[in-house]
Amino acid sequence: MTTSKIEINLTNSRKEKPNEENLVFGRHFTDHMFVADYVKGMGWQNARITPYAPISLDPASIVFHYGQTVFEGLKAYRSKDQSIRLFRPEENFRRLNQSLDRLCMPQIDEANALEGLLELLKVEEEWIPKLEGNSLYIRPFVIATEAFLGVAPATTYQFYIILSPVGSYYEEGIHPVKILVENEFVRAVKGGTGGAKTAGNYASALKAQETASSQGYSQVMWLDGVERKYVEEVGSMNIFFKIDGEVVTPAINGSILEGITRKSIIELLAHWGTPVTERKVSMDELAEAHNSGKLEEVFGTGTAAVISPVGELNWNGKTMRINDGITGALSKKLYDALTKIQTGENEDSLNWITSLSPTYEEIK
Amino acid sequence: MTTSKIEINLTNSRKEKPNEENLVFGRHFTDHMFVADYVKGMGWQNARITPYAPISLDPASIVFHYGQTVFEGLKAYRSKDQSIRLFRPEENFRRLNQSLDRLCMPQIDEANALEGLLELLKVEEEWIPKLEGNSLYIRPFVIATEAFLGVAPATTYQFYIILSPVGSYYEEGIHPVKILVENEFVRAVKGGTGGAKTAGNYASALKAQETASSQGYSQVMWLDGVERKYVEEVGSMNIFFKIDGEVVTPAINGSILEGITRKSIIELLAHWGTPVTERKVSMDELAEAHNSGKLEEVFGTGTAAVISPVGELNWNGKTMRINDGITGALSKKLYDALTKIQTGENEDSLNWITSLSPTYEEIK
Ligand SMILES: Cc1ncc(COP(=O)(O)O)c(C=O)c1O
Ligand SMILES: Cc1ncc(COP(=O)(O)O)c(C=O)c1O
Repeated sequence: MTTSKIEINLTNSRKEKPNEENLVFGRHFTDHMFVADYVKGMGWQNARITPYAPISLDPASIVFHYGQTVFEGLKAYRSKDQSIRLFRPEENFRRLNQSLDRLCMPQIDEANALEGLLELLKVEEEWIPKLEGNSLYIRPFVIATEAFLGVAPATTYQFYIILSPVGSYYEEGIHPVKILVENEFVRAVKGGTGGAKTAGNYASALKAQETASSQGYSQVMWLDGVERKYVEEVGSMNIFFKIDGEVVTPAINGSILEGITRKSIIELLAHWGTPVTERKVSMDELAEAHNSGKLEEVFGTGTAAVISPVGELNWNGKTMRINDGITGALSKKLYDALTKIQTGENEDSLNWITSLSPTYEEIK
Repeated sequence: MTTSKIEINLTNSRKEKPNEENLVFGRHFTDHMFVADYVKGMGWQNARITPYAPISLDPASIVFHYGQTVFEGLKAYRSKDQSIRLFRPEENFRRLNQSLDRLCMPQIDEANALEGLLELLKVEEEWIPKLEGNSLYIRPFVIATEAFLGVAPATTYQFYIILSPVGSYYEEGIHPVKILVENEFVRAVKGGTGGAKTAGNYASALKAQETASSQGYSQVMWLDGVERKYVEEVGSMNIFFKIDGEVVTPAINGSILEGITRKSIIELLAHWGTPVTERKVSMDELAEAHNSGKLEEVFGTGTAAVISPVGELNWNGKTMRINDGITGALSKKLYDALTKIQTGENEDSLNWITSLSPTYEEIK
C-alpha cells in the first residue's frame, strides 16, 4: 500500500445519486472503491482505486468459513465552505490494526491507508451529501481470501474501502430510543473477540436484536458474559449514564469495543471540566439509581448515531423510563458539540478533524 | 431447493486430480459444486450443480461485515465394492439447521440438501479417493449475500456444497498429538455462538492456535469462559477422557459444538455396554487423576481426524504425559471401529451409513 503508487481507474458509467431527502443507512454505494492486496512474504501491494464492483472469491476462501475479517466505520462530512471533513480517521486505522492483530491478520500502514481514503474521497467528492445531518459513511474492511479449509491464518488478504451516502442511523433521528437489556444471549466475553471490530461479534448479536426489534426496542444492551451483572455496551454503541450528576461509562475490559465517539466524549467532557468515571456499572446500580430518581440521563455513542439518547430501558420485564422519555440536556449538548465540530460549524479545538479544502489541499 | 429441479451444468475443462499419496487437507477442490439461492418471501430456489467457480459478491455483502455464515463438514468414503459411503449425513444437515437458526438465517430442507449432495457426488464420483485413509471432504455452507451495511439478518443467501479430496487431517496420522490448555483466550461462552458451526468461533480461535503451534502443540484445549475451570473442547474436536476405567466427556452446555463423531462414540460405547458419562470435567480433576495415575486415555473426536489420541496435555506450563505418549487401547479400538464402518469393512450395525451403490442406487 505505497500511496505514491495508487493506481486510479475511473468508471465510465457513473450511477445516479440517491435522493438526499430520504437516504437510508447502508443501502447506496458510490462509483469507486479503494483496494489493496496482501500476499504473505510480499506485504501489501497494488493499492488502487477502481470502479465499485463485485468481489470475486474462491468458494473455499477463509473469510466464508472461518470469519477472518475486520472492519471500521467512520464518516466524511461536507462543511459549509465545501471542504471535506473527517472525524479522527487516524483513530479508526489504529483500531483497525488492533482488530487485525486479534484476528491474526497482517497490519496495514495507517498513514498509507488514510492517504488512500483521501484519494478516494477526492474521486467521490460529489457523493458527499449536502443536506444537513447527512454524511458519507466510510467502511474500510479486510478479508482473508486464501482458498483453504484448514483453521489457520490466511496467507492472502484484501483491504477495501467502500463509501455510502447516509442519513441518520435511526429513522427517529435524535429522538430517544428504547433499549432492551439482554439476559439470555451474550455478545462477547473476556478472552474473546469483543474488543475487536470483527464480523463474528455482530453475527452473534443478531438473535437478541431480532427479539428486541419484535418487541419494539431499537437495540439491546449487553451484559458481561461472566456474571451477567455489568453493563457492556449497546448493539453498535458504547453507553453512558448520568447518575446523580456524575457521568459514568463502563470501563474498557477486553470485551467492549473501544469506541472513538466514546473516547471523544470522555475527552470533550474532561476539556469542559466534567470528567467521566470509567468503571464497572451494574444493572442493580442502575435500577437503584432509577428508583431513587438519580438516573438522570442515558445515552449511546457511536459513529453511526453520534449520540443516541435512551428514553427507556427494559430489564427483566421492568421498564425504566429515563428523563421522562425526552432527550436530556447533556445528551443534547454533546450531540450539538460533536456534530458542529464534525461539520465545521464550531472550532476544532481538540484537533480532531482531518480536512480536504475545496481545492483538495490536506489540512490537519 | 426442490431436488426434482436440480439443474446440472457440467464443466468442459476437468482439472487434473492431485496425487493421492500426499494429499493435504483442504487445498484441492473438485470440478463442480452445488448451489441454491434464497430470497426472503420466495424461499430456496435455483438448486443447481455448476462448475466450481469463484463466488461474486457485492463488497457490502453482509457475510463480509457481520459474519452471517454457517457451515458443515462431513466425508464421503469409497468402499472396496466401489460404493460411495456417507457417515450420518442427515445429522450434518440437522446441525446445519440448528446453526442457521442461531444466526437468524433461513432453514434449509434437510432431505433436499442431502439429495443435492448425492447428485453432486454422482457427478464427482471420480474425485473420491481410492487410497486407504483418504476420503472426500464435503463442505456445505450458507452465506448472507445481501448488500447492506446495517446489522440485521440478510434477506438473501446462498447455499453451497464444495468437495475436497483429503488425506489425514494431522500430518502425523493416528499418532498421539500434543495439546495446550488455553488459559487466556476463550472460544465461546454460554449465550454466545459456541454451539453453532459459524465462522466467528473459528476466527476467535486463531490467536490461541497460533501460540500453541509456535510452541509445538497441534491444537488448544478450551476452558469455559465463565469460571475458566471446566474443559469445553479442542480446536475442531470434542474431547473424551478415560479416568480410572470410566469414559467421560464434557456435557453439551450451549457453548460446546455437539460433534457428530462425539455422538457416535457415545452411541457406540453404549452399544458395547460401556456407557459414557457426560458431565462437567474440570482441569483440577484431570490434574489429580493424572497425578494418581488414573488418567488412562485422552482422545479428541471429529470428522476430520475421526479419533485423535492425545499424548500430552500442557496446563499452566505443567506437562501431563498420557499413556506414555502412545495411542491407548480404547482410542485405537474406537478409531478402527468407526473407520471400518465408514469404509464398509465392518457391518453398519447402528445404521449410520447412507450409500450409493456403484450403479448410483441409494441405499440406507
Ligand atoms: C459494538 C460496537 N460498539 C461501539 C461502537 C461505537 O464505536 P465508534 O464510536 O468508534 O463508532 C460500535 C461502532 O461503531 C460498535 O460496533
Ligand atoms: C469446534 C468443533 N468442535 C467439534 C467438532 C467435531 O464435530 P464432528 O464430530 O461433527 O466433526 C468440530 C468439527 O468438525 C468443530 O469444529
